[in-house]
Amino acid sequence: MKVNRVWEPAFAGGGATFQKVPLVLDPDKLAGADVVIMGAPMDEFVTYRPGTRFGPRAIRLANDAGGDPRLRHIDAGIDPFDVLAIVDHGDAEIVPGDPLASHRAITEMVGQILDAGAVPIILGGDHSIAHPDIKTVAERFEFGDLAVVQFDTHADTGTENWGVERAHGTPFYYLVEENIIPGDRIIQVGLRGYWPFHEEFEWARAKGMKWHRMEEIDRRGINAVIDDVMDEISDAPNLFLSVDIDVLDPAYAPGTGTPEPGGMTTRELLPAIRRLATERGLAGMDLVEVSPPYDHAEITALAGNRIVMEALVGLALNRAEQEPRGEDPR
Amino acid sequence: MKVNRVWEPAFAGGGATFQKVPLVLDPDKLAGADVVIMGAPMDEFVTYRPGTRFGPRAIRLANDAGGDPRLRHIDAGIDPFDVLAIVDHGDAEIVPGDPLASHRAITEMVGQILDAGAVPIILGGDHSIAHPDIKTVAERFEFGDLAVVQFDTHADTGTENWGVERAHGTPFYYLVEENIIPGDRIIQVGLRGYWPFHEEFEWARAKGMKWHRMEEIDRRGINAVIDDVMDEISDAPNLFLSVDIDVLDPAYAPGTGTPEPGGMTTRELLPAIRRLATERGLAGMDLVEVSPPYDHAEITALAGNRIVMEALVGLALNRAEQEPRGEDPR
Amino acid sequence: MKVNRVWEPAFAGGGATFQKVPLVLDPDKLAGADVVIMGAPMDEFVTYRPGTRFGPRAIRLANDAGGDPRLRHIDAGIDPFDVLAIVDHGDAEIVPGDPLASHRAITEMVGQILDAGAVPIILGGDHSIAHPDIKTVAERFEFGDLAVVQFDTHADTGTENWGVERAHGTPFYYLVEENIIPGDRIIQVGLRGYWPFHEEFEWARAKGMKWHRMEEIDRRGINAVIDDVMDEISDAPNLFLSVDIDVLDPAYAPGTGTPEPGGMTTRELLPAIRRLATERGLAGMDLVEVSPPYDHAEITALAGNRIVMEALVGLALNRAEQEPRGEDPR
Amino acid sequence: MKVNRVWEPAFAGGGATFQKVPLVLDPDKLAGADVVIMGAPMDEFVTYRPGTRFGPRAIRLANDAGGDPRLRHIDAGIDPFDVLAIVDHGDAEIVPGDPLASHRAITEMVGQILDAGAVPIILGGDHSIAHPDIKTVAERFEFGDLAVVQFDTHADTGTENWGVERAHGTPFYYLVEENIIPGDRIIQVGLRGYWPFHEEFEWARAKGMKWHRMEEIDRRGINAVIDDVMDEISDAPNLFLSVDIDVLDPAYAPGTGTPEPGGMTTRELLPAIRRLATERGLAGMDLVEVSPPYDHAEITALAGNRIVMEALVGLALNRAEQEPRGEDPR
Amino acid sequence: MKVNRVWEPAFAGGGATFQKVPLVLDPDKLAGADVVIMGAPMDEFVTYRPGTRFGPRAIRLANDAGGDPRLRHIDAGIDPFDVLAIVDHGDAEIVPGDPLASHRAITEMVGQILDAGAVPIILGGDHSIAHPDIKTVAERFEFGDLAVVQFDTHADTGTENWGVERAHGTPFYYLVEENIIPGDRIIQVGLRGYWPFHEEFEWARAKGMKWHRMEEIDRRGINAVIDDVMDEISDAPNLFLSVDIDVLDPAYAPGTGTPEPGGMTTRELLPAIRRLATERGLAGMDLVEVSPPYDHAEITALAGNRIVMEALVGLALNRAEQEPRGEDPR
Amino acid sequence: MKVNRVWEPAFAGGGATFQKVPLVLDPDKLAGADVVIMGAPMDEFVTYRPGTRFGPRAIRLANDAGGDPRLRHIDAGIDPFDVLAIVDHGDAEIVPGDPLASHRAITEMVGQILDAGAVPIILGGDHSIAHPDIKTVAERFEFGDLAVVQFDTHADTGTENWGVERAHGTPFYYLVEENIIPGDRIIQVGLRGYWPFHEEFEWARAKGMKWHRMEEIDRRGINAVIDDVMDEISDAPNLFLSVDIDVLDPAYAPGTGTPEPGGMTTRELLPAIRRLATERGLAGMDLVEVSPPYDHAEITALAGNRIVMEALVGLALNRAEQEPRGEDPR
Repeated sequence: MKVNRVWEPAFAGGGATFQKVPLVLDPDKLAGADVVIMGAPMDEFVTYRPGTRFGPRAIRLANDAGGDPRLRHIDAGIDPFDVLAIVDHGDAEIVPGDPLASHRAITEMVGQILDAGAVPIILGGDHSIAHPDIKTVAERFEFGDLAVVQFDTHADTGTENWGVERAHGTPFYYLVEENIIPGDRIIQVGLRGYWPFHEEFEWARAKGMKWHRMEEIDRRGINAVIDDVMDEISDAPNLFLSVDIDVLDPAYAPGTGTPEPGGMTTRELLPAIRRLATERGLAGMDLVEVSPPYDHAEITALAGNRIVMEALVGLALNRAEQEPRGEDPR
Repeated sequence: MKVNRVWEPAFAGGGATFQKVPLVLDPDKLAGADVVIMGAPMDEFVTYRPGTRFGPRAIRLANDAGGDPRLRHIDAGIDPFDVLAIVDHGDAEIVPGDPLASHRAITEMVGQILDAGAVPIILGGDHSIAHPDIKTVAERFEFGDLAVVQFDTHADTGTENWGVERAHGTPFYYLVEENIIPGDRIIQVGLRGYWPFHEEFEWARAKGMKWHRMEEIDRRGINAVIDDVMDEISDAPNLFLSVDIDVLDPAYAPGTGTPEPGGMTTRELLPAIRRLATERGLAGMDLVEVSPPYDHAEITALAGNRIVMEALVGLALNRAEQEPRGEDPR
Repeated sequence: MKVNRVWEPAFAGGGATFQKVPLVLDPDKLAGADVVIMGAPMDEFVTYRPGTRFGPRAIRLANDAGGDPRLRHIDAGIDPFDVLAIVDHGDAEIVPGDPLASHRAITEMVGQILDAGAVPIILGGDHSIAHPDIKTVAERFEFGDLAVVQFDTHADTGTENWGVERAHGTPFYYLVEENIIPGDRIIQVGLRGYWPFHEEFEWARAKGMKWHRMEEIDRRGINAVIDDVMDEISDAPNLFLSVDIDVLDPAYAPGTGTPEPGGMTTRELLPAIRRLATERGLAGMDLVEVSPPYDHAEITALAGNRIVMEALVGLALNRAEQEPRGEDPR
Repeated sequence: MKVNRVWEPAFAGGGATFQKVPLVLDPDKLAGADVVIMGAPMDEFVTYRPGTRFGPRAIRLANDAGGDPRLRHIDAGIDPFDVLAIVDHGDAEIVPGDPLASHRAITEMVGQILDAGAVPIILGGDHSIAHPDIKTVAERFEFGDLAVVQFDTHADTGTENWGVERAHGTPFYYLVEENIIPGDRIIQVGLRGYWPFHEEFEWARAKGMKWHRMEEIDRRGINAVIDDVMDEISDAPNLFLSVDIDVLDPAYAPGTGTPEPGGMTTRELLPAIRRLATERGLAGMDLVEVSPPYDHAEITALAGNRIVMEALVGLALNRAEQEPRGEDPR
Repeated sequence: MKVNRVWEPAFAGGGATFQKVPLVLDPDKLAGADVVIMGAPMDEFVTYRPGTRFGPRAIRLANDAGGDPRLRHIDAGIDPFDVLAIVDHGDAEIVPGDPLASHRAITEMVGQILDAGAVPIILGGDHSIAHPDIKTVAERFEFGDLAVVQFDTHADTGTENWGVERAHGTPFYYLVEENIIPGDRIIQVGLRGYWPFHEEFEWARAKGMKWHRMEEIDRRGINAVIDDVMDEISDAPNLFLSVDIDVLDPAYAPGTGTPEPGGMTTRELLPAIRRLATERGLAGMDLVEVSPPYDHAEITALAGNRIVMEALVGLALNRAEQEPRGEDPR
Repeated sequence: MKVNRVWEPAFAGGGATFQKVPLVLDPDKLAGADVVIMGAPMDEFVTYRPGTRFGPRAIRLANDAGGDPRLRHIDAGIDPFDVLAIVDHGDAEIVPGDPLASHRAITEMVGQILDAGAVPIILGGDHSIAHPDIKTVAERFEFGDLAVVQFDTHADTGTENWGVERAHGTPFYYLVEENIIPGDRIIQVGLRGYWPFHEEFEWARAKGMKWHRMEEIDRRGINAVIDDVMDEISDAPNLFLSVDIDVLDPAYAPGTGTPEPGGMTTRELLPAIRRLATERGLAGMDLVEVSPPYDHAEITALAGNRIVMEALVGLALNRAEQEPRGEDPR
C-alpha cells in the first residue's frame, strides 16, 4: 500500500486525520496498511472529570507540521510515514450514553484492523477501552504471547467503581481475571498517589504483576526502570502499549480527568515509548484520557500526538531494522 | 421549621450549600421544610459536550451574597428565605458510568423530599433527569393534575438517541407515552434551531402538546407568550418547571452542552420564571444542563443560581399571598 | 448529485467537514453540487488580533448535530441537505506569510466551484478575502448584476491600512474602484463605532453606496431595515452575502479580531440572513473574521456555523420554491 | 494645549496610555488639558471577586484603533481627540493592602487634575473610589451644584460591609450622609437583584434619591428612562457620571466582581452615556469594577474603553456646541 | 474521636470539606480531633495578583477521590484518615477590606484548634496569615521550641510593602523581630529570583536564619538539601510547616499571585513535605497563595491539596510510629 | 546616562515599559544607554499559531516587581539596573500585513540603538526577525567576529516555508548563505522533534554549524552542554543570543506558536542564559515567539521577561567585572 499524506499548512485542509494521513473508512480497504489509527471517543466510564470523547479529534488536530514528506525524527533519523503505510480509520461507532455498546464498537473496529494485518493504534476515550481493545488484540495470540506495558498514574485494577465493573478504573483487573492477559505479562509504570488500594496490590502480587512507582523512577532514573521493563517483557513475543496521559505530571498534561501531581515529564516518557517500540515492535497501542475541555493551548493533546508519533518512529526503526541515528553536528 | 442561613462573605465558610442554607443530609430531618434543594450530578446521557456532573456544585457556589438576612428581591419586595424554610439535601447517590442507576437514586431522593411535604428543586445534571424527577412528582397527583412548563431550546421528545432511550433528548417523549403527564399538560418555551424532527412535532401535535418557538417570543414579546402559557396551564392545579439552561442564548449561558444561538436573554427568562411561580406556585422544579467546564467567569452557573432564586421568590410571594412590590423611589 | 452526510455523534468520526457533508477535494468531482463549502484560512491581513486562520476548521467543527437526516429548521420547515447537494471542497492552498498568494489560491478555488455550477460559500479567514472571492463571483455576471449585502461593524472601505492595500479593512474600496461591483450595489448593515473615516463616507456617498448603522437598527428594528435592504437590492438579479462575524456584539461573538460593543444579536442576524437567501437566492457567500484563539466554549464558531446554516436553509427554500413553514402546535 | 496621539498599530508602541494619548505624569504639566484620564488600580474593598486593580491597565489597552487622527464616532460625527485636549496622568499612588491610603492618593490626584482646570476621568478600581473621587469634585462646587448619575446593578448605599465602612458597597451612603452630595442629586440607573436592603431604600427615599430599576428600563425602554433622568438632574448645573461596569449584563461584562444577570446591553448603555455627556457636559466621571482576571477576549475591558469613549464624544459635542450628526448614506 | 468521611463520587455530595471529612463548625466539638483543617480566605495583603480568597475552597474541592476508606498513599503504605481523626472547621471569620481584622479572626480560630489539642492546618489566603497563625502556635511553646520550615520563592522578610507592615511579604520579619520565633529556628527552602533585598539577607544572617536557594537544590539535589534541613531543625522539639505554593515552578502552579520561573517540581516538594512530617511530626502548617482565578484545570489547587495530603500522610506515619512502606511488586 | 526606574506597584502606573525603565522614543536621546529594549510586534511569518504581535507588550508587563531599586538577583548578587543604563525604545514601526516592511523597520530601529552605542534587546515577534536584527548587529563587526547562540526547538534553517523565504523557519539559513554569520559561528541548543529535515542537517554540517539536541542535554546535563558551547564560541569576540521561547517545554511555555514536548525547563535555561552573558557579554539579543493568546496566567510572558532579566544580570556582572555571589546564609 502506498500512502501519501497531504502536504499543506497544518491548520488548513478539509480533513482532520492523524498527521494528515488518508482517511480510510471502509474496512475492506485497510489491507496493505501497516498501522491504522482509530478513535474511541467515549467518556461515560470516567469517575471524575469527563471530556475524553473529544480526545481523538484533539489528538489528531494537535499537529503543527502538515504532512511534509521531508520530516524525520531528529533523534531517530527516520520518518515513520516513509517506512510504514499508516492510515486513519476514523472512529468506532460509539453510542453516547451506552458505554458497553461503545465497547462493542471498539472491539469490532479493532478487529477490522487486525483482520487487515495492521497494527491498531486506538485514541481514547477513557481507559475503560483498554479492556475491549487489548482483549481483541490478545485473542489473536496464544495466551501469554502478548505483554502489556501500561504507563499510568493509577493501576486501573479495581473490581468496580461504585458498582460499575467496566469503568475506567478496572480494565486490567478483568484482563487478568478473564484470562486474557496473564498477570505476569502486565508491567505498570508511573504509579503514584492513592490508587490502587492495598487489597488490589495484594491481588496484583498474587497474579505476578509488575509495577514501577514514580518514586522508583525518581530514585533510579527512567532509563534504569525501562531496562527492567525490557527484562520483564523479554519472554513475551508481542507487546501492547497502553498509555494513560495522566502518567504525565499535570504541568505537562492538565487536560485529563484525574490528574495527579508528581508525574513523569515528556522528556522521560517520549523516549521510553520510542525505545519500547524500537526494540520490541508493537502489536497494538492505545492512548487514553486526553480531555480537551480541561486542556489549554492544546498542550495535552499535543503530548498525546507526540506519544503516538514516538511509537510510530520506534516501530518504523523496528520494521526497517535500523538503528536510531540522531542528527549530530559532525 | 426555622432555618437560618450562614451570614458570611460568599467565598468563605466551610460549606457549599445553595445560598448558604443548612445542609440536611438525613431524609428524616427534612420534615418542616418548604423547599428542598438537591443535586443530580450526572452527564452520561448527553450527546455532545459533557460536564453537567459539575453543575450542582457550580450552581450552589455561584453566589456573591453570603447569607445576609436583610436581602430582598428588589422587584418583588420579598426575601424567599424569610417566607420559606429552605434546606439543601445534598446530591442523589448517582453512580458514574451507570446513568440508569443514577436515575433510580434521583427518584429515591425526590421521593424523600416529597415525603417530607416539601417542594423539590433538582439541580442537574443533564436533562435526562427530567424523566425520573417529574415522574416522581407526578405520581403524587392524579393523572393530569400536574402541568409542566419546559424552558428549552430542544423539545427533548425523541424516542432515542443512537438507540439510547433514556438520553437527554427523550424525557418528554416517555413522560407522555408512559402516561405520566398528558401531552396537553406540557408547554414548551424557547424552541429553535433544528430539533425536534418533523415527525416528533407530528407526534407532539397528536398528543396535544403546546410550544412556543423563539421566533414567536421575538415577534410577540415574552410577556404575551407567558400570558398564553398561563392560559394553557390554567386547568392544571399544579405546576412543575423544567428549565434547560440552554434556552438562554450562548452569550448568556456558554457553559452548556448543546448551545444554540438565537436564545432567550436573562431579562426575558428570569421574570417569566418568577411570574409562573408567583401566580401558580410550584410542585417541583429542575434546572439542568449547566456544564461548568465550558463556562467562564461562572456566568452560566450564576444564571442557573438566579433562575432558582427567581422561582423561590415567586413561590414565596405565592405562599405569602403577597403582591410583588418593586422598590420605587417614591 | 446525490449526497449523503455521515450520521454519527457530532464529536465522532474521522472527518471534519461542514456538518459532515462529503469531502470532495478533486475539483473535477464538484459537478452536480449545488453548494460548495470551502475554507480560506488566512489572517495576515488583520490589523489587530489574528487567529482567523483557524476559523474554517472551527466553524466546520462547531456542530452538535452529527449528520442526522431527520433534522429540519424548525422555523422554516426544511432540511437544506435534503434539497441541496452540498459538499465540502476543503481549503484553498493558502500560503502562510504570503497573503497575496493566498488571495490567488482563493480566486482559483472559487473559480473551480463556479465552474462546477455551484454556489461557493467561503469560510474565512480575514475580511481581505472578500476582494478575491467577490471579484471571482462578480466576473461571472454582467457588471451590476451582482449585489453585495455586507453585515459588518466596519465598512472596510479604506484605501490602505498602514500602506497595505489589500488588508482586511479595504476590500470594498477596491471592489468599487476596480469596477467589480458598482457602489450602488453594495449595502452595508451594522456599522458602528469609529470606522470608517468621514472621508470614506464621502467617497461612499459619491459612489452611491448604501448603509444602515446599528443606531438605525436599534431605532427602527431589524425587520424594517431588512425591508429597506430588500428594496435597495431589488434591481440586482444576483446576491452575494459577505458576513463579518464582528457585526455581532462581542457578547455573542467574542472570538474575533476587532470586536466592537453595541452590535447585533443572533436573534437579529440569523433570520435576516435566512430571509435574504430565501427571497433572493445566493450567488455566493463568505463568512469571515472568526478567530478561535479568542473564542470560548466555541460560541463564536457556533454562531458562524449557524449563519451559514441559515443561508443554506434560505437557499433551500428559494430553490424549492417553498414558503417557510414554522412548526406550530396546531 | 495641543495634544497628538501616537498613530500606530494598536498592539504596537512602547506606551500604554488610554487610546495612545500622551502620558503626562507631572501634575504641573496638566494645565491646558480639557480631560485627564487617571487610574485607581485597587481592589481591597470588593466583597466577592477581586482583580479590579488590573482594570485601569486593561481598559487603556483594550483599543484596536491605534491613534488614527481620521477616526470619528460614526453616529456623532465627531472625533473627541480633535476637540478636546486629552492626556493620561497615569495612576494614583495606591498602596496595596492599605485601601484608605489609596483613597487619599486618589483624592490627591483628582485634585491635581481639577487644579489644572481639566475634567477627571478615573478608571477603577473598585467602586469604593467613588467616595474620594466624587467628594473631591463636589468640593469644587457649591453644595447641590453637582448631580451624580450612577449606572449600577447595586445602589452601593450600605452603611458597611461586614463592618468596613469605606467598602465598595457604601460610597453613596457616605456621600449623602457627609453632606457631599444631596440625596436628590443622585440618580441611579440599572438596579436589579437583591441589593440594597429594604432599609436602605427607606433611607434613600427619605433622602430624596431617585433610581430606575432594570425592570423599568425593560418595560419603558432606555430612552424614556433617560428622558426622566434628564429631568431629574435638570436643576443641577454640573454632572458627574459614575459607571459600574456591572450595570451591564454578565454576557456583556463577565469580567467583574459581582455580576448579576438581567442587566443592560451595550446598545442601551453606550448611547445613554453619550447623551448625558452631550446634553449636560461632564464635571467628572469614574468607570469602575472591571476585573480582568475574570474577563475573556477582553470584552469587558473593551466595553469599559468604549464607555469612556462615548463620554468623551458626548463632551466633545457639548464643548463644540455641535449637534450629533450620524453618517448617513445620502 | 471517630471520624468517618463521606464516600461518594468526588464531584457529588452537598458538602465541600477537605477530602470529605466532617464539617465541625462548633469549636466546642473539636475535642478529640488530631488534625483540624481551617481556611483563611483573604487576599488584601498581596502585592500583585489577588484571588487567594478563593484558595481554601479550591484546595478543598480539588479532590478526585471522594472519601473512599480503602485508599492509602502507595509510597507510604498508610491512610492518614485511618490513623488520624481529621475534621474541617470551616473558615475564619475574615472581613473583606479589613485584613487586620481577618488576622484577628485567624488568630482566634487557630487558638480554638489548639485549645482542642489538635494540629491546625490553615489553608490560605495570602502569606500574611503566617504571622497570626505561626504566632498563635508558637505561643503555646517555650520560645525556641518551635522551628519553622518555609517552602517559598520569596523570603517574606521585608519590613513593609509600600508602607504596609503586615503585608504578604513581611511575616517572617515580624515573627523574628517580635521574638515569636528565633531567627535560627526559621529555615527557608526554594528562594530564587529577586527577593529579598541584600539588606534583608544581611538582617537574616545576623538573626541566624538559614535558607536554601533553588540554585542549591538544583546543584545538590533536594534530598541532600532536606538532609541539611533536618539537621538545622534537629534541636527544635516542634515543627511548623509554612508552604507558599509559589515555591513550585509556574508550570506546576500557575494559579498564584507572584509566580517566579525556575521553581521546584511536585516530585521534589511532595516527598520533602512528607519526610519532614514523618520524621518530625507537625505542630501546625499553613499552605498559602493558591489563587484560583489564575489557575487552570485546577492544577494549582490540586497541588495544594496534595501538599496537605502529604503532610497528613507523614504525620500519620509519625503518630503510628510506622515506617513508610511503598507498595512493591514482590 | 543616569536612569531611574519608577518604583510603584507593578500593576500600577501609566506606562508599560520593560521593568518600568524610562520610555525613550527619540533615537537621538538613546546616547548614554548601555542596553536598549525594543519590540518587534509581528507574526505574519509564523506557520502555525499566530499571536506573537502581542508578545512585546506581554513580556514587558509580566513583571510583579515594580521598579524597586533594592532588588538584586539573589544568585548573582547584583542589580542590573544599578550597573547598566537601560531604557525602552518602544516598538519598531511594523506594518501589519507587510512583514518585509516590518523587517525594514526592525533593521532601522536596531541600527538606531547600535548608533547610540548600546546593546539592543529585541522582543519579538516571530523568529523571522532574527534575520534583520542579527544582520544589523553583525554588520557592525568584521565577518566572523559575531557568534550566535540560538536556544530553539527548531533550527530555523529552511530555505522557505511554502515558498516564503523570509518566514520564521528560515532566518539562520539566510544569515549563513548571505555571508552574514559564518556557519561555524552559529551554535544551536535544544533541538528536538521533527525539524529540520535531514537535508538541512547536511547543509548545516557542510557549513560547520554546531548544535546540541535536547537528547544530549538530557543525557549529559545542561552544564556540560553549555561548557561545550563556551568552547565553541571561544574564538568569536562577540556574542548574540537568539532565544526562541519554544526551546522551553510547553509545560513552561504554552504561549507559543509551534510548541514541542520534551523541552528545557526554566531551571536549565535561565542559568544558561545568565552564564553566557556573564562570561561573554552581549552584543545583542532577541527573544521571540511568545504568543499571548495561547498563554495562561502569563507564565510564558513571565518566562520571557525573566530570560531577558537573566541576560541583563549576566551582562551587568560582565561589565562590572564582578563574580556572581549568591546570597548564602553564612
